[in-house]
Amino acid sequence: MYILPYIAGAMASLIQEIQSPISEDIKHFEAKFRESMKSRVMLLDTIMSYIVKRKGKQLRPMFVFLTAHLCGGVNESTHRGAALIELLHTATLVHDDVVDDANYRRGFFSINALWKNKIAVLVGDYLLSRGLLLSINHGDFEMLRIVSDAVREMSEGELLQIEKARNLNITEAIYYEIIRQKTASLISSCCGVGAASACQDEQVIQRARIFGEKVGMAFQIKDDLFDYTSADIIGKPVGIDIKERKMTLPVIFALNKASRSEKDHIINIIKNESHKPRKVAEVIDFVKASGGIEYSFTAMNGFREEAFALLSQFPASPYREALEKLVNYTIEREK
Amino acid sequence: MYILPYIAGAMASLIQEIQSPISEDIKHFEAKFRESMKSRVMLLDTIMSYIVKRKGKQLRPMFVFLTAHLCGGVNESTHRGAALIELLHTATLVHDDVVDDANYRRGFFSINALWKNKIAVLVGDYLLSRGLLLSINHGDFEMLRIVSDAVREMSEGELLQIEKARNLNITEAIYYEIIRQKTASLISSCCGVGAASACQDEQVIQRARIFGEKVGMAFQIKDDLFDYTSADIIGKPVGIDIKERKMTLPVIFALNKASRSEKDHIINIIKNESHKPRKVAEVIDFVKASGGIEYSFTAMNGFREEAFALLSQFPASPYREALEKLVNYTIEREK
Repeated sequence: MYILPYIAGAMASLIQEIQSPISEDIKHFEAKFRESMKSRVMLLDTIMSYIVKRKGKQLRPMFVFLTAHLCGGVNESTHRGAALIELLHTATLVHDDVVDDANYRRGFFSINALWKNKIAVLVGDYLLSRGLLLSINHGDFEMLRIVSDAVREMSEGELLQIEKARNLNITEAIYYEIIRQKTASLISSCCGVGAASACQDEQVIQRARIFGEKVGMAFQIKDDLFDYTSADIIGKPVGIDIKERKMTLPVIFALNKASRSEKDHIINIIKNESHKPRKVAEVIDFVKASGGIEYSFTAMNGFREEAFALLSQFPASPYREALEKLVNYTIEREK
Repeated sequence: MYILPYIAGAMASLIQEIQSPISEDIKHFEAKFRESMKSRVMLLDTIMSYIVKRKGKQLRPMFVFLTAHLCGGVNESTHRGAALIELLHTATLVHDDVVDDANYRRGFFSINALWKNKIAVLVGDYLLSRGLLLSINHGDFEMLRIVSDAVREMSEGELLQIEKARNLNITEAIYYEIIRQKTASLISSCCGVGAASACQDEQVIQRARIFGEKVGMAFQIKDDLFDYTSADIIGKPVGIDIKERKMTLPVIFALNKASRSEKDHIINIIKNESHKPRKVAEVIDFVKASGGIEYSFTAMNGFREEAFALLSQFPASPYREALEKLVNYTIEREK
């Protein structure tokens, strides 16, 4: 399949185009989400409105609503499902501010930097519990199961990645397992929740979940590629994964192709010298020279093709078309 | 009601005495809990066995099982409920290690000190999700609602306390609201889950929850008193609440009784000079001289009496007797 080489300027209007069949759903959702965050603790309310302001492009609700339309139509439980995932995702973002020790996220200061770790953890727990109560009080148990499963996978995947960072000799198979758990499980749960809110056919729900998983795999490979291909420091600075000893597909591929001595040399840099920018640049050059970038792009496109193949099993509709565009947007986006 | 002046040595045998009518339940529970923590990520398994080792006196499961017996009897869902609460509580303890920046807990190094904040947060999320899945997969939705509500209350209560630490002028009413949310809600949910697993009578479940809440209030007042009455540094060092600007009942009472100038003087110490041990000692002396300690003990006993009054509405049994002892143990324990 031919992929349009989207340029940054076209991205904003593309989002509008994708959202057009679900623009009412998104509007209704935003109101519901704001409502679900209210608290009588002032400090919480302040943080919540800050969180609502820094909301992203709503990619997750878009997956939920488009999948629901694909599987029978959006209803009230779809809206609660989208809010559940957004509450959950925001909770993990807030917790991630602790986890990544990040000083900024999307150009704002992180919750962590502003209010310290302790508040970040408590706010994360609070959001999580609000999401749970929203689902429990409405009997959305199948959705809750899908989403709890995603929480389990995400934390397990992150921990697996940390475990493997100690032992740099990781295989492609382990890399795929890590990104499936830590990233793909979330998009998979968006599509699963959308489908489960709209129909009860286990096969259809399962297909939607695997579709989301494939998109998530392609998304994370692309995200990991930014570390090698992105030239500026808006968002994530280049080479930060190497500094954190995160072994991603480009370097895993390159190391597997390298000679024993070359491999030892690169591993030694990652282990002991990754605080030196010149050394990080050496690793990046090594990965590029080995063809690790092209290899990863090919792998990414493989997952995208699998996603499209699953999508084509759903009947054609404006929603399916929008989902196709959303898949490409998710993968082709600039950082 | 006359309260035995328990001495430390008698405490261990008292625990055995309380556990005797539920010793089989506790044994079964411990096995189930270990099982529910298993993961194929090695790092997680290491941390989990470390967590299992540092388990406390099982007060929470004891409340769950004794209340269930009081309300009709223990069954499989009681066991899952106890595991859910323990998973949840362990998750918040692990998160608390981040929150409190604690360097030790019960004499062990905290998860946080050993593996850093990021892992602590992820492990907490993982435990939470395992608890959720355990309940969801067995359809224990009423218990899940009770426990999610407790998570919401606990995080909201902690945040309320942080918010109020900025403004030291807090009332007794706000203090009670904070400890009800951050502490009493957990014991309340233990009793609620025990009752909900054993019967469907809303009135009985509600009575069990309020009973647990009263116990939790008394427990927290006692815990806050340790900051003023405990002389050694095993556990929490004396005066640490003052250093953290946590306004608890003894000092709130003392400040309300004080003259304007005395009040300003003490508030100024807490705000600006609480890093000086001599100044902290001055605050402690001020609280003692004002009768803040006796006042708080009286308040604590008031909540205990309320708890006993609720308990007396359940039919007499060895379980009720054990619960009475458990209430006293919870409140009378040495730090």
